[in-house]
Amino acid sequence: MRSSTIVHEVAEYKKRRDELITQDRALRADHSREPLSPAEALAEEVIRKLKTTEAATLWSADYPSIPHPFPGMEFLTGRSIIMQSKLFEILSKMPKGSLLHGHFDAMGQAPALLDLALKQPAVHVRCAERLTASNIQTVPPEFLCLPEDMYPDLAGSVSLTDANYQHTWISAQLARELFDPQLGGPGGFDRWVLAAMTINPSEAYGTHNTVKKVMLHISVQRFRSLIATVGFQIWEKFASTFGVYERIVHYVPIFREYFRQFLLSAIEDGVSYIEIRMNLTYKVVAADAKTELSTREIFLILDNVLKELTAEFKQQGREDEFIGAKIIITAFRLFSVEIIETLLHGCIALKKEFPHLIAGFDLVGQEDVLQPLIYYAEPLLKFRQMQQDAGVDEIPFLFHAGETFTDGTEADMNLYDAILLGTKRIGHAFSLLKHPKLIEMCKEREIAIEVCPISNEVLRLTSSMHMHPVSAFFNHGLRVVLSSDDPCIWQCVGLTFDFYQVLVSSELTGIIQLGEVAKDSIKYSMLSPDEKQRALVAWQKRWDKFLEYVAGFGREVLSAHDTTSFT
Amino acid sequence: MRSSTIVHEVAEYKKRRDELITQDRALRADHSREPLSPAEALAEEVIRKLKTTEAATLWSADYPSIPHPFPGMEFLTGRSIIMQSKLFEILSKMPKGSLLHGHFDAMGQAPALLDLALKQPAVHVRCAERLTASNIQTVPPEFLCLPEDMYPDLAGSVSLTDANYQHTWISAQLARELFDPQLGGPGGFDRWVLAAMTINPSEAYGTHNTVKKVMLHISVQRFRSLIATVGFQIWEKFASTFGVYERIVHYVPIFREYFRQFLLSAIEDGVSYIEIRMNLTYKVVAADAKTELSTREIFLILDNVLKELTAEFKQQGREDEFIGAKIIITAFRLFSVEIIETLLHGCIALKKEFPHLIAGFDLVGQEDVLQPLIYYAEPLLKFRQMQQDAGVDEIPFLFHAGETFTDGTEADMNLYDAILLGTKRIGHAFSLLKHPKLIEMCKEREIAIEVCPISNEVLRLTSSMHMHPVSAFFNHGLRVVLSSDDPCIWQCVGLTFDFYQVLVSSELTGIIQLGEVAKDSIKYSMLSPDEKQRALVAWQKRWDKFLEYVAGFGREVLSAHDTTSFT
Repeated sequence: MRSSTIVHEVAEYKKRRDELITQDRALRADHSREPLSPAEALAEEVIRKLKTTEAATLWSADYPSIPHPFPGMEFLTGRSIIMQSKLFEILSKMPKGSLLHGHFDAMGQAPALLDLALKQPAVHVRCAERLTASNIQTVPPEFLCLPEDMYPDLAGSVSLTDANYQHTWISAQLARELFDPQLGGPGGFDRWVLAAMTINPSEAYGTHNTVKKVMLHISVQRFRSLIATVGFQIWEKFASTFGVYERIVHYVPIFREYFRQFLLSAIEDGVSYIEIRMNLTYKVVAADAKTELSTREIFLILDNVLKELTAEFKQQGREDEFIGAKIIITAFRLFSVEIIETLLHGCIALKKEFPHLIAGFDLVGQEDVLQPLIYYAEPLLKFRQMQQDAGVDEIPFLFHAGETFTDGTEADMNLYDAILLGTKRIGHAFSLLKHPKLIEMCKEREIAIEVCPISNEVLRLTSSMHMHPVSAFFNHGLRVVLSSDDPCIWQCVGLTFDFYQVLVSSELTGIIQLGEVAKDSIKYSMLSPDEKQRALVAWQKRWDKFLEYVAGFGREVLSAHDTTSFT
Repeated sequence: MRSSTIVHEVAEYKKRRDELITQDRALRADHSREPLSPAEALAEEVIRKLKTTEAATLWSADYPSIPHPFPGMEFLTGRSIIMQSKLFEILSKMPKGSLLHGHFDAMGQAPALLDLALKQPAVHVRCAERLTASNIQTVPPEFLCLPEDMYPDLAGSVSLTDANYQHTWISAQLARELFDPQLGGPGGFDRWVLAAMTINPSEAYGTHNTVKKVMLHISVQRFRSLIATVGFQIWEKFASTFGVYERIVHYVPIFREYFRQFLLSAIEDGVSYIEIRMNLTYKVVAADAKTELSTREIFLILDNVLKELTAEFKQQGREDEFIGAKIIITAFRLFSVEIIETLLHGCIALKKEFPHLIAGFDLVGQEDVLQPLIYYAEPLLKFRQMQQDAGVDEIPFLFHAGETFTDGTEADMNLYDAILLGTKRIGHAFSLLKHPKLIEMCKEREIAIEVCPISNEVLRLTSSMHMHPVSAFFNHGLRVVLSSDDPCIWQCVGLTFDFYQVLVSSELTGIIQLGEVAKDSIKYSMLSPDEKQRALVAWQKRWDKFLEYVAGFGREVLSAHDTTSFT
């Protein structure tokens, strides 16, 4: 029989335990915020219940093509299961706040982009050799927008799948029509092109070690030679998709519509504000497929599309759904110090003409093998003074840093420079957990972390979402925003997929935490104080609506039989 | 031309940067210790240089059977490359201090264990059906030590590979002799048995998702049914190897020699003190293969082997190489609360009789699916009082906790209980980084973390060493000891492989950090203060010798052409 002493002792112990757990979680956004409203408390309960239930049902079922599914598994393999998730459907309705980390050319949707291309007679395609059943997996398409006077004679055009085909250009429309029925006809053409625009599971997971191969102690020269020799599949493939986009997107008639479309798809997904990373060296050709636009002309188009869209939403009384978009000017990490300095001047000139459009400056390209931030210390340190001399408002740094799982490498040490150079947010900061002092500084200075869960997993920084540092970021009280990086390549739309992966791979994270993340994505955006205020008010309205929607089927979910408790 | 202002500014910046890096790394053992001696500084330089060189040569070469090798890659795949590493050879000579986390039955070497079994006529084997080329991969051996009066008649024994074989017992020696030459003869028999004692790459990496399959929200009942149905390969295979060891090791004539052998192999590898986890419910049968030994008799054998070994080393003037070994009593996480309380009493009884042998108490079994520590709160909270009532010295808790990549699950929350219950060290603590408050407490209370790098990777908590939290543990100033957990299953000897994986997967970690880890493995062991003092002095002597050894080929290594600098 149990003595009353031990009963008391156990009770005391459990009290101490609860206190410790509370202390340990105190820094989480969903714990440090004001108490939940009844509607929020209900939504939290409903979503947690649904998550638990789907883990034991949807994710424990057997799927012929997916040996061992689990919530938070490799995204490209698990996507088909995610699409069947009620939880996913609910999240797609959630107001997400801002999308703060995405690269212009990879923010659309591949099929929509292909449709745009097929509408343009100027778009032509060729490939290195005749396509057959045996080489269609390995021979990629090459696109080019040709001026009318260079169109190949339609009658003489030979299909890419024809025995006589010889690396000649053919109109994309015609190439599609004439595509060999044995290879799927027009549908087969579409699949062939889309495969070159996206990463498939075997590409990502069959080669998931290679990211590490060239990671350690390596010069840019050696990296290039490695790509040429042993190959570097996942990043090689990743880079190659941009090659395809570039040839299609950078043509004014497509460019304009593409931009409009990806904005609309993000808005559709509950995103109300977007910051888009775009290279300052970005090239676009006019409708004649000859004349190259100036950067100024490119930005006039962007500005124009945004003004149109804003007007349309206003007209439809949907102002709350779209606050706007800004551009983060980027430069490639392979450029010389001199070129970077020139580009910084270009960035300032743009800020002068489009003050409302320019959100900040960043350097891009794979950190593990390209130049570290410290290499550009001189121009980057000059930047602030250059802005003052030019009399423009501050252009904040919004650096990629620590997009690596190494420690003490140049890529990892970019975190020191990003912070010392005064970055307002950090892109990825995947290796931040290894740096006690930097965690502290990010918290003190409220430097938000742009976490791109699916991107990190597909590019093999982590084998699944469970090992992704984002849960630790939450618990350490770091400000986190979730983003999609290059959604087109992993065939995502907006932010729902990334929100879903983070939600289902953590026991602690619920809908309230995601709500705080959405709010922070507005708070830590580069919107002006007034714009932020307006965006937050609009978000709150939509959030309250969302909570009602969740409550709508709350009873049904909560009454469902629980198959999953630990006994 | 550059203004002197900017030149000055850059210099200032680099100074601030160096200061920040120093601050950020200040908590590392290799930074917070006293300055390096000249011999240490040289060794550090030599080892770093060798690591860099081998990353660019040994690890960048092409291997027919290993598509994309890299330092720190999946251990079972990379082992053959590691064996060719000069760095590995050097580490094997390093004094490692203590091995503090290993499970008795899996601490030997599979081939040696098989040899021991083949020397014993009592050891018999059978399998479910006749072995053929098509089923030899899937039909495992079953061993049993038979009493002499139950030996099957030798003449009538049928080979496991014979057409007439029918699940009958046959002497292991004979089974080996008669093994069908088509299946490799005696060598084929050995390979077949060893495959059942170890995990191979395809088992570990072909099924690396399955650990997560049953991880979330699941009852023990459901876990069992899942194993029975869809399977749970990696942990299932992991558990199955213990089934094989048990039938061989738990026979006195083998048990005694097996224990002696694994102690010697660890000592040979530079380990001078060992704490071994052993179930209190451990069963051993006497030489007659009938009589079961009492726990007391088992411990008399262990005590006796240790006394012999100590005497032998003293006689050979090698006292510095072997300080001794102690047992951490363990109980399985599936037992009832009542059984655990009974076992705690048994542990105290043992401590009374073998005070020098008992190092502490722990609970074992996969945390993700078995009972959490809180389930046993009552008996565990009583334990201290029980010890005082029995008048024995304190038996510290040395709990496994957080051997999971989840957050907020029972397995992850075991960390709260391990710490609140006063554990002196934590086994694995793989999920500790997610807990800011617990990191703090582990540092304040000097709770050392028993990190088992290869075990965590083979059991798929992490896809490679780069994502293992150990580098972060170092940087956060946590006390870390490295251990091998179940070296027999991954065919490791001693600690060199684990030291190697940690060294090559981090840019920051060098030989000095590993030296501090070795010292801490003595400092945070359960040795008495006097024993610790003796062990530390002995270790220092051997460390100084090791530094001389490294210096021996220092010049050669340092003069080697550097192919790897970042330019």
